[in-house]
Parts: sequence; C-alpha cells; structure tokens
Amino acid sequence: MPDRDSKTVTAALVIIGNEVLSGRTRDANLQYLGDELNKLGIRTMEARVIPDIEGEIIEAVNLLRAKFDYVFTTGGIGPTHDDITSAAIARAFGIGHHRDPEAEAILRTHYKAEDITEARLKMAEVPVGAELLDNPVSKAPGFRVENVYVLPGVPRIMQAIFEGFRHSLAGGQPMLSVSISSDVQEGQVGRELGELQACYPNAEIGSYPYVKGGKTGTSLVARSTDQVELDEIADKIRDLVRRHNEIPLE
Amino acid sequence: MPDRDSKTVTAALVIIGNEVLSGRTRDANLQYLGDELNKLGIRTMEARVIPDIEGEIIEAVNLLRAKFDYVFTTGGIGPTHDDITSAAIARAFGIGHHRDPEAEAILRTHYKAEDITEARLKMAEVPVGAELLDNPVSKAPGFRVENVYVLPGVPRIMQAIFEGFRHSLAGGQPMLSVSISSDVQEGQVGRELGELQACYPNAEIGSYPYVKGGKTGTSLVARSTDQVELDEIADKIRDLVRRHNEIPLE
Repeated sequence: MPDRDSKTVTAALVIIGNEVLSGRTRDANLQYLGDELNKLGIRTMEARVIPDIEGEIIEAVNLLRAKFDYVFTTGGIGPTHDDITSAAIARAFGIGHHRDPEAEAILRTHYKAEDITEARLKMAEVPVGAELLDNPVSKAPGFRVENVYVLPGVPRIMQAIFEGFRHSLAGGQPMLSVSISSDVQEGQVGRELGELQACYPNAEIGSYPYVKGGKTGTSLVARSTDQVELDEIADKIRDLVRRHNEIPLE
Repeated sequence: MPDRDSKTVTAALVIIGNEVLSGRTRDANLQYLGDELNKLGIRTMEARVIPDIEGEIIEAVNLLRAKFDYVFTTGGIGPTHDDITSAAIARAFGIGHHRDPEAEAILRTHYKAEDITEARLKMAEVPVGAELLDNPVSKAPGFRVENVYVLPGVPRIMQAIFEGFRHSLAGGQPMLSVSISSDVQEGQVGRELGELQACYPNAEIGSYPYVKGGKTGTSLVARSTDQVELDEIADKIRDLVRRHNEIPLE
C-alpha cells in the first residue's frame, strides 16, 4: 500500500458488466470514483470495461493490480449466475473461495429466515482472507484483497460502501484544479495554451469545448498539486481570454 | 474487415481523455456506441478509458486492433496541445503523419481566412493514407486507418460522424433482447435463472436490480441472436415471475 509521502498515488478501475458494454446501462461509477479518488490525491490512470467472463476479469485485475497502487472493481457480486466477480478475484490471487462466516451472519441478520435463499448466500462467498467492506444499504458486503477493492455495480450501494472505507485509503498530494469558461474557441487559443503548458510542465492544462444555448464555448482547465503554481496559471488563462476580448467566467 | 457470414463481429472502444478519468466529464460515448454497434450485430467486448499519453494510446490501440474486428477511439483530435490522438495512431501503425490536403481544404472552406489558425490546421493532420470521415457538424474530419476509427470526444459531433459511416460497417447477426421487469428480487430467483441460463447456453441471461419510487425491483434481460429461442426464454421468464406472485412488465 502506498504511503502518504509518495508523490503520485495511482488507481485503476475495472467495470465489469455486459450491460455496460451493450449500452443498456450507462456507467456512473467511473465518474464518481474518479472524482472522489482525486479528492484523496489518488489519480485514476485507467479504467477498463469488460464483460462477465472469468478470464477477462482475472487478466485485467492481475495486470492492473501490479501496475497501480489501487484497483477498484464494480459489478458482478450479486446473487445470480452471472455474478462471477468474487470467484474470479480468488482465482486472480490464486487463493481459495469460501462462504465467509461473518458475511453469512450479516445476511442472516438482515433477511428473514424464509428469505435466506441459496442465491442470497452466494453473496457471502468471498476469497479466503478477504477483508469485508460494510454495506449500509443492502448489507451484502464488498471486500478487499490486498490492493483490490471489490464493489457492487449499483451506484447508490457502491457509493455507500466506498464512503465507509475511504478514510482508510492512503492518498498522495490532492490534485487541485481551476476551470475558466468563456466564449473563446479552442482553435483561437490552441497555440497560446500549448505555450502555457510548456511553461508549466508539472501542471496539466486542458481545453474542453461545450455547447450552451446553441453557442459554443470552451472550458480551460488547469490542474496541479501546487496551489501557488495553479494561481499563476489561472491568472495567465484569464489574461489569455481577455486578450481575445471575451470574459473569463469561473 | 469481417464479412457478414462470420458469426460474431466484435469491437473495442478506446476512450481517450484525462477529463473522463478525473471525473470532470461523464463519458456518454460508450453507451451510444455500444448500443448502435449492437444494432448492427457488432458486439463491444471491451472499452478502455486512458489518459492523454502517447504510449498508452499506442499500446491500447495496437493490442485491441489485433484482438477485435473493429476499434473506435474517441477524444483527443481537436486543435490544442493535449490533442495527441492523431499522431499516436500514426505511430501505432508505424506510418507517417501529415497535413492532409483534402482535410485542409474542408477547414479552409469552413472557416473565414482570418480564423484559419495554426491550431485549427492541426485538425487536418492525419496518418498518411487515412480515410477521412465526414463531420457535418464542425467540419474537422474523423478518420479511419484499417480497422481503427478515430472520432472526437464531444458526443454530438462523434454521433454525427458515426451516422455518416455506419452503413459501411460489416456487422454480424444482430443481438436481439427482451427485458422483463417486476417486483421480484434477484435473490429470490437466482437459482431458477441459473437453471434457465444452463438450458440456453447460446443466450445470455442477466438480472439487473433497480430502485424505483423507493421500491427495489429487477429487470430480467435475455439476449440472443435467435428470435425463436428468445421468445421461448421470455415465456419462461414471465412464468418465473408469475410463480413468485408478481406481474411481468415489459
């Protein structure tokens, strides 16, 4: 696990689900996790959306857990036959997969005796040695094995579980950002923005066109871990917008 | 390029942009392309969201174009310094990168002479030999190299370009689907759904819980390329819901 001194702490997401790839469901977890991790000083470097296929899950998780400080998976830990993430994670780590007594007790406390189906008890099956992650909404826990956090796909439940363990994540320097919008067009300021980026190689300067009320504009966004540097860049972006006779809005 | 006889035609998406990974922007292109490709009988097997880093783009594109029939990239083909996709695609294929005379002519026709900046002309730079893809919205073209289609990130523009070339994509058998919602809970029908899946190994049966008006329900979804098979499965899902004393809604 990374410590607070390391400069850049990184994460990858593995979004598991045929329904996301087929367009049936629009994923909301990447945006939430990208944003929340960012606040903790953890940079999401990659996200993969993959189908409910064991080999794909194993390959993605093993590759990404070796490459990044944290991996978060979403999806595939429910009670049905297509929920194969938990078993795949156990295989990825080469460890056993069992019904966890603590997880089973949580489910048995939550459901009435007549509602405890075999399918629901499947949600108590986790890799041996996994740490359970509390689910205050629907009780079936997420879990962690080493640097891999395994979460459900339903955004409201995923978010509630994340809120429960976020304090335990070791972040780096939070990435600060400033966003300045105006009616300036990207193509008008492309050269100047490139020059500004060249002056500040440790910052990240991006431009994002948008359409609002039928009019196109651009958000110029600077990101840096250094507040002083960020303030300087923001001033220069405001000047740039004014030189093009437009008003910088924040 | 796949022909219409091959059973499964596959695609991968590469979504390029720091702003998606940081949570600043919620991607809409995966859902659109997943859905539209599906209608053409092309199955999206993987999507990768990666940062604006040349090496990452090259690695993802080269791996995925070898593995799948089609690759679609979105993002990073605008006029600013962080728009590096076009040059990265040329490097991925080991071909030159030049200002395309046809693309330049399109831009010079669209913009007034005084608005033709160097930054805007950057949008006429494509890999040598690339086929231009018409952009009816903002003119700067997308392009294709072999089985890789390179599109912008702004959804409205990406979609307009896609609409222009979709007829040229060689699809397979379209995936048909039926979705049956009810107040049945996943955990109640997990075993029976698994048994149903086992009876129809060529179909894909999924269950997706949802919350509506404070009440949780489940969408049971079957997908198959065979309409007769799909109708049979749908009947069995309706029976399953009724056995649990709920009403199947479609």
